[in-house]
Amino acid sequence: MSQRQPAEPVRKPHEAQKLEGPLAIIAGGGQLPCVIAESVSSRGVPIHIFGIRGEASEAIERFPNTWVKWGELGKLFTTCDKIGCRDLVIIGGVSRPDLANVKFDFGAIKNLPFIISLSKGGDDHVLSNIVRFFESKGFRVHGAGDMAPELLVGEGNLGKRTPTPEELADIEIGLNVVRELGRLDVGQAAVVAKSYVLAVEAAEGTDAMLERCAELRKSGRARGRTGVLVKAPKPGQEERIDMPTIGPATVQRAAAAGLAGIAIAADRVLMADREATIDAANRNGLFLLGQKWDL
Amino acid sequence: MSQRQPAEPVRKPHEAQKLEGPLAIIAGGGQLPCVIAESVSSRGVPIHIFGIRGEASEAIERFPNTWVKWGELGKLFTTCDKIGCRDLVIIGGVSRPDLANVKFDFGAIKNLPFIISLSKGGDDHVLSNIVRFFESKGFRVHGAGDMAPELLVGEGNLGKRTPTPEELADIEIGLNVVRELGRLDVGQAAVVAKSYVLAVEAAEGTDAMLERCAELRKSGRARGRTGVLVKAPKPGQEERIDMPTIGPATVQRAAAAGLAGIAIAADRVLMADREATIDAANRNGLFLLGQKWDL
Repeated sequence: MSQRQPAEPVRKPHEAQKLEGPLAIIAGGGQLPCVIAESVSSRGVPIHIFGIRGEASEAIERFPNTWVKWGELGKLFTTCDKIGCRDLVIIGGVSRPDLANVKFDFGAIKNLPFIISLSKGGDDHVLSNIVRFFESKGFRVHGAGDMAPELLVGEGNLGKRTPTPEELADIEIGLNVVRELGRLDVGQAAVVAKSYVLAVEAAEGTDAMLERCAELRKSGRARGRTGVLVKAPKPGQEERIDMPTIGPATVQRAAAAGLAGIAIAADRVLMADREATIDAANRNGLFLLGQKWDL
Repeated sequence: MSQRQPAEPVRKPHEAQKLEGPLAIIAGGGQLPCVIAESVSSRGVPIHIFGIRGEASEAIERFPNTWVKWGELGKLFTTCDKIGCRDLVIIGGVSRPDLANVKFDFGAIKNLPFIISLSKGGDDHVLSNIVRFFESKGFRVHGAGDMAPELLVGEGNLGKRTPTPEELADIEIGLNVVRELGRLDVGQAAVVAKSYVLAVEAAEGTDAMLERCAELRKSGRARGRTGVLVKAPKPGQEERIDMPTIGPATVQRAAAAGLAGIAIAADRVLMADREATIDAANRNGLFLLGQKWDL
């Protein structure tokens, strides 16, 4: 049952320096694609953003960019060939596309078995397939954390408040839940208050889970400003394209759910907007703790 | 980490026959308390229902009854003494009371350490404390399934539809999730569609989890009439007072979430209204499968 393998480090730090052509950033939603683009460009590495239509923000247009729809794999490959790009980062949230509504270009149709493989299985299964697919096409797939290591949450207390011993015990319970579930390719987060597991994340995502905790609190099943959000990658998670992220909105939602703080796997979670995130934690009286975890 | 113990059978079938005095039924919400009362009475066993104020339905009043508030433990004990009752069943849903708003009678105050122990820990921890407490007071605590074994879901297909091989594979995945989580005293249910774990139950309960799945489906993250609800007791769960239940409303919610069926741990889940539940499954085209599971 419990075939826990020691997670191999998929990240090799600071690979950014070794790129030959420009770095392609395949961009889903949120601000992370632009933050990564900014960080990488600032070190003199040329980039090209591929915005996934319907997912990526228009803000990507201030960088060299190409919009692609789901199903336009051919366009993606052709453009990469043209600009001489063999390195890529895949970053930002996406919804699983409904394949029935996708129009495939010829480059996509040539890779149909791969595309069909995306419609089945747990997140991690799908994401590993994506990485393997791009690698089979000769690309090097990099983690956002390697390309912009300054965005990773480090070890220690990031904000002003420190967790109480009771909160540390709740973190330990949440970590066990996330760890056990991770082996089954489920979730990256759990909420624990006074030794009681309030919520476990699956397909709904961290935000929806936190909103549920706020509801539970309203309905009187969980009282007082207590409880912790524990956020970590799954063991063996394809961190190159699915690194957990945290930002000011996460902190706001945790605060609205009445939580006392957030514990994060150090060096394995991205913080898109460091200053605003820590500031939100301090203003709401939440702790923000990075811990080295054996996942 | 994985100290799975083989679950000891807490139920000894058909104990109903051996009672000395009347059977006390401590009743939370829902129709199960009355269904159990009906079943036990019909075999000639006298009963007395203690309705928890604010939780139990008024329908209990057609049986010999006493209303008790949270905190009226003294009243409960005195009444049991008076009617010569040493056997009890605890059944029906309750919200965790907010101890700050409870008025305690003297019988409750004498047992304050027990009451305080209820405000902390996972469900199973709290429920075991309750059973141990009543046992320490000389009561025998029986499972609803022992008192009314005809309410247990048995093995096999209960409805007309049978699960496909793909659905059976989803059941297996859901069972693994419930099993792993159960060791951590979390949840009794999960939803899996096409090998993808959509939702995991924690404090919100099965109904809220199914509503979440309906939402996920609406927002396009899960498509087609697929997926299974897997419902089982936690390993080592105090089944005497927290046996999972299923009824027509569960089936309706599963149908609204677009699921293909429900798989249940045979002999370990109560079905309050058998006919209406199976009928709801058949009308909505869902399978309803009891399986013997090693939990």
